[in-house]
Amino acid sequence: MTGRVTLVGAGPGNAGLLTLHGLRALQQADVIVADRLGARSVLTQLAADGIALTAEVIDVGKLPGHHPVPQDGINALLVQLAREGRDVVRLKGGDPFVFGRGREEQLFCEAAGVPVDVVPGITSAIAVPAVAGIPLTHIGIATAFTVVTGHDQIEELPGGRDHTVVLLMGVTTLGHSAHVLAATRGVDCPVAIIEDGYGERQRVTIGTLGTIAGVAATRQVRSPAVIVIGDVVALGAREEPGSAPTRIAELAG
Amino acid sequence: MTGRVTLVGAGPGNAGLLTLHGLRALQQADVIVADRLGARSVLTQLAADGIALTAEVIDVGKLPGHHPVPQDGINALLVQLAREGRDVVRLKGGDPFVFGRGREEQLFCEAAGVPVDVVPGITSAIAVPAVAGIPLTHIGIATAFTVVTGHDQIEELPGGRDHTVVLLMGVTTLGHSAHVLAATRGVDCPVAIIEDGYGERQRVTIGTLGTIAGVAATRQVRSPAVIVIGDVVALGAREEPGSAPTRIAELAG
Repeated sequence: MTGRVTLVGAGPGNAGLLTLHGLRALQQADVIVADRLGARSVLTQLAADGIALTAEVIDVGKLPGHHPVPQDGINALLVQLAREGRDVVRLKGGDPFVFGRGREEQLFCEAAGVPVDVVPGITSAIAVPAVAGIPLTHIGIATAFTVVTGHDQIEELPGGRDHTVVLLMGVTTLGHSAHVLAATRGVDCPVAIIEDGYGERQRVTIGTLGTIAGVAATRQVRSPAVIVIGDVVALGAREEPGSAPTRIAELAG
Repeated sequence: MTGRVTLVGAGPGNAGLLTLHGLRALQQADVIVADRLGARSVLTQLAADGIALTAEVIDVGKLPGHHPVPQDGINALLVQLAREGRDVVRLKGGDPFVFGRGREEQLFCEAAGVPVDVVPGITSAIAVPAVAGIPLTHIGIATAFTVVTGHDQIEELPGGRDHTVVLLMGVTTLGHSAHVLAATRGVDCPVAIIEDGYGERQRVTIGTLGTIAGVAATRQVRSPAVIVIGDVVALGAREEPGSAPTRIAELAG
């Protein structure tokens, strides 16, 4: 009998932000296919918390030699494992349907006759700003938000500072993005960069569209990072030197 | 000794989409202040699943006589309870920092000397489209998404069909929103409405920017509903007559 595949969003990398459905799926799985450091890290934290999983874990994000398995290979692997009669959890960082290629994997499996469930996860686009005290909307300050990557559609983003922009995978292209967005938002529009949200190296860097590229270079900001642009940034925490424990992180203890 | 307040995102109304941190906070709380039907429903489901909570529950979303407590009253209540030395969970539908006024409550409490933790939740803006098989981004189809309410900033939304729009609280203003968005996206741009996502009345309605207002009127679409606009809609499920069990809903069983 064919097994089934469950796409599970692991959230931003803190096991406490896994959902109850997500945990149950992991506990019931025969095999877990984990693709990102964030997802892999959640499994490590669960084990450290004494939550034992019996499933085999296949890490497709980084194999010996640091070559990730290409998407076609992951799709084929999921179908192959299910056809062996195994129940598979495909554990993905954040939410499977937000820059996660989850629907792609689901459609591939379903076309091959493998049933697929989806368990949403907490996206870092929302939860990482929150850890720095930055809401994406706030009454009187912002009533809309856009999530985009540093590679995509920056030129087409509308609105002013009351329309929050969350930039994922945007560190290397930050100078260009800031320049483009300053045309509609002004060079003094606030910007926050949260590196390694919920991780060991978590650090908040604050600037404006005019200054942020320089500040980021000085502070040697690195990926992974979530960049928030708009007046909501002023509602958030001050710049931190890094590795500051946050209340959310403490909750994970 | 002053108690503390924990803002917890309850997610879209399915207890299985609560986070592990969120559940732990509920289990440790002395009192739970729940403001929305979605949040209240999660508590009911937990009880039905045999997860007993010892906390007193105060429902500020709907009191006898159907008058919700105003925001100022909620803020004051949180501080008052904490000053009585009780640990408070403020349980909010979705995510506290996405149209949730969570940061407002946090700032008010902190100004009063009450410490506040935040536990992010799954926003319906992402999880409700997912239940209909609609990803917000998809390789080759959409690389950005914007979340906005039907009351706000519709006039300023940029981009084409490769920039997904998620409209919350948008049923009553749908005709206007569709008309405005058709100017940049075309009248044949696909639209999906998911009513009561994860709830008893869950139903998917499909149309285009040109037809959706009429279709919604014919089918008597009602709030709460999440509206998705863009080419990603074509990746989703077909229209359903309503109350169809979904795989996610089944997982909750």
